Amino acid sequence: MKRFLDLADLERDAVLDLLALAARLEQHPEPRALAGRILGMVFFNPSLRTLASFQAGMARLGGTSFVVTPGQGTWKLEHKLGAIMDGDRAEHVREGIPVLASYCDVFGIRAFAEGTDMAFDLAETQFNAMADTVDKPLINLESAVNHPCQALADWKTLNDLGVPQSGKFVLSWVKHPRALPLAVPAATLHMAAMRGMDVTVLRPDGFALPEAIMNKARLAAAASGGSVRETDNRAEALQGAQVLYAKEWGSTRHYGDAAGDAALRAHLGDWTVDESWFANADAQCKFMHCLPVRRNVAVADHVLDGPRSVVLREAHNRMPAQMAVLHRLLAHST
Amino acid sequence: MKRFLDLADLERDAVLDLLALAARLEQHPEPRALAGRILGMVFFNPSLRTLASFQAGMARLGGTSFVVTPGQGTWKLEHKLGAIMDGDRAEHVREGIPVLASYCDVFGIRAFAEGTDMAFDLAETQFNAMADTVDKPLINLESAVNHPCQALADWKTLNDLGVPQSGKFVLSWVKHPRALPLAVPAATLHMAAMRGMDVTVLRPDGFALPEAIMNKARLAAAASGGSVRETDNRAEALQGAQVLYAKEWGSTRHYGDAAGDAALRAHLGDWTVDESWFANADAQCKFMHCLPVRRNVAVADHVLDGPRSVVLREAHNRMPAQMAVLHRLLAHST
Amino acid sequence: MKRFLDLADLERDAVLDLLALAARLEQHPEPRALAGRILGMVFFNPSLRTLASFQAGMARLGGTSFVVTPGQGTWKLEHKLGAIMDGDRAEHVREGIPVLASYCDVFGIRAFAEGTDMAFDLAETQFNAMADTVDKPLINLESAVNHPCQALADWKTLNDLGVPQSGKFVLSWVKHPRALPLAVPAATLHMAAMRGMDVTVLRPDGFALPEAIMNKARLAAAASGGSVRETDNRAEALQGAQVLYAKEWGSTRHYGDAAGDAALRAHLGDWTVDESWFANADAQCKFMHCLPVRRNVAVADHVLDGPRSVVLREAHNRMPAQMAVLHRLLAHST
Repeated sequence: MKRFLDLADLERDAVLDLLALAARLEQHPEPRALAGRILGMVFFNPSLRTLASFQAGMARLGGTSFVVTPGQGTWKLEHKLGAIMDGDRAEHVREGIPVLASYCDVFGIRAFAEGTDMAFDLAETQFNAMADTVDKPLINLESAVNHPCQALADWKTLNDLGVPQSGKFVLSWVKHPRALPLAVPAATLHMAAMRGMDVTVLRPDGFALPEAIMNKARLAAAASGGSVRETDNRAEALQGAQVLYAKEWGSTRHYGDAAGDAALRAHLGDWTVDESWFANADAQCKFMHCLPVRRNVAVADHVLDGPRSVVLREAHNRMPAQMAVLHRLLAHST
Repeated sequence: MKRFLDLADLERDAVLDLLALAARLEQHPEPRALAGRILGMVFFNPSLRTLASFQAGMARLGGTSFVVTPGQGTWKLEHKLGAIMDGDRAEHVREGIPVLASYCDVFGIRAFAEGTDMAFDLAETQFNAMADTVDKPLINLESAVNHPCQALADWKTLNDLGVPQSGKFVLSWVKHPRALPLAVPAATLHMAAMRGMDVTVLRPDGFALPEAIMNKARLAAAASGGSVRETDNRAEALQGAQVLYAKEWGSTRHYGDAAGDAALRAHLGDWTVDESWFANADAQCKFMHCLPVRRNVAVADHVLDGPRSVVLREAHNRMPAQMAVLHRLLAHST
Repeated sequence: MKRFLDLADLERDAVLDLLALAARLEQHPEPRALAGRILGMVFFNPSLRTLASFQAGMARLGGTSFVVTPGQGTWKLEHKLGAIMDGDRAEHVREGIPVLASYCDVFGIRAFAEGTDMAFDLAETQFNAMADTVDKPLINLESAVNHPCQALADWKTLNDLGVPQSGKFVLSWVKHPRALPLAVPAATLHMAAMRGMDVTVLRPDGFALPEAIMNKARLAAAASGGSVRETDNRAEALQGAQVLYAKEWGSTRHYGDAAGDAALRAHLGDWTVDESWFANADAQCKFMHCLPVRRNVAVADHVLDGPRSVVLREAHNRMPAQMAVLHRLLAHST
């Protein structure tokens, strides 16, 4: 494995191997496995879990990290090719990224969607332009439409909890004050499909996931024996569900159009998860969310604080999952 | 010792043990004592000494640190229970804090007083709500009304300088452009009382420390053989003093009322420490301050740059004192 | 070597020794050479390469770093002596700097020129006032008129590329939206002269380097057998050049006068390096720049992306050059 950019780049068995490695590192730490190795991370967008869990995970394997945050301690970086750089961006990613990568043994980039042109974002134009300048093992710390570290951690969480491989998994849109990117819904949908689950995407009208994202998940489901469908019918979707994975995202009908998105959103006042959502679900149905989550907007306190919630376990699993990625990328290289 | 939140949680002998350990680690480093261990720190408020000395101290024991700063590289965190989170705070401390703690072996939190409701702050409401979510060894990096790391470092400084256990210690209010929290005056007063000193709190009218803080110090003095009193008479307070510890804090009569505080403050132009303050003090009287200090507002240049000042030693002692805390919290756990 | 503040503080042979050590550490890493040692860095100005390459380089030698950024996570620091500190600067460098230095084994400071009074900046008044408070090995991470780490890395790059010691080196002013400091042009000019090169400073009228900077370079050239001259004639300057080193700086005729600087700058539209600049240069002429560089303002895309550009190598060389500095400052001390 030279890069960890998308779970879809890996065979299903390779993912299972990573998960086994994550479980093994949790039980049997290898505190010197990556001694002397250096992880560099650049965050174009804020982070809490990724920032902390990668630093902690790298240290638990004996390695070291450095973090660069453009716009904060470091100037802003320009992405646009051919730009005449006379504005507030003092350096281009075509210099900044390969320079930073040249100091380390493994490199990670976080760069969210631009959120204006869906085709541009679906093609991972910005992330890929940076990735092309990096000749080191590279990790996607969340890009326009992907978040493979979250997906791997969530898969581990499903395994840890004994959720059946073919169980019913509902990915539901939930309320948020404004449009958020498609990275986590896309990665979560694909992960559950690749795991072999019976996946339902529950979302209101105007928030259907792009065909490219749905098709990628359908392909993964076809290979794993899972299934993928979508609906706006909550009761039907949650019937017998073993997992409700809540996530916020922006209107795809009004991509990049904040006013259009807000107009749709204004009529979706009841998309806050509360216990009533679970009326027809499996009695043990789990509540998942990648965090950060807005309490009493996306989900009610009583669900987050109740026995269904496994959000802390998901977040904790970021660390062992990423330790497995780091180990696989680095332990056998020189 | 599972937590280091308040010097008052420890028996006096346990503090003396910590101080002995700090002195030993200064003389005989243990560069592998905490190898592989990880310290996570979250700073809701700015820091210089705490940020640097904990990272350096942890590294000197072989461990690693990560730092999270909400509002800077990480979104802002909500503290309020039951909040409907539709504003600028993207995550609640009830998720953010236990998640971060789950990545490390020892965790530290800095969260200053809210400064509006004195009872809320005196009860350490905000800090305790976070502490309740942490199941790891925990360190108070300064809370609403406490700063035990500073207190321990200051006690070490008094020992290093040979200040007698029962010597005369004056904690004096000094000028500042605006109200500051009670954390350091409260912790300093309690520390000096617990050490067994003859403590005088010197402060202008309207700046008396809250009864809860005074009573806690009196209890400590009763146990150690020390004493605690307050006055607004500078000459009387400093008569024979061996230590003048200067600190800024807000009016307790006008707690949370900036205008009321400012009105009192306007008439306190001569509360800048200069050499005249020491006229009746012990000839060797030391000048202490926890830093940061505003030169020529809280204290004159000639005092800070003169032989009485031990502020650099105090600041340096943060590191060995905190190394002792880290060592005690972690070295014998698994 | 106790401090690394200026290449001019070293004998030429000592620089050659550092470069040999840098080359050796690149080939034969010493991952435990600085085990347990701590580098502290304070950045009064933004950074990308310095921030990352020092952390990575220190880690590659087994050491650890901490970073403090006044104004970001840490309050702003006051520099002015005798200041009455009732504004937004909560701590003076006379406390902040020695305190931070007391936690580490080697310390670095970045503090750009104030940019108002040339004599103040040429005297390194601000940097030296801080340096005077530090009793540890100290590294200049870029001061008002110096950047010795960049100079050492550039010298290494010239060696790596086989540029003859007496080759023709052109330091050229290039376009930028506004005035930038003199640190890199001053350090680069001196470095090339000390290396023994035939150095031409190419700059428009109003941008001549200060006499103090020119004279220092002439002294270095006299000792090394090199030469230093200046011109505003581009064709003449680049005739036979083996290196074109582009750099932006502010008008020295209008130092600290943004309007005067901008008025001069408005007529310099053709000072963007493109391939036409190399018409009479050596066929193999290299393009150098310390980065960050504004594409299509200072230099055209086709030059940066073409075969002449060695800017990534320069940037990468920051790491081994600085590892040599850290090693020399620390490896034989206790």
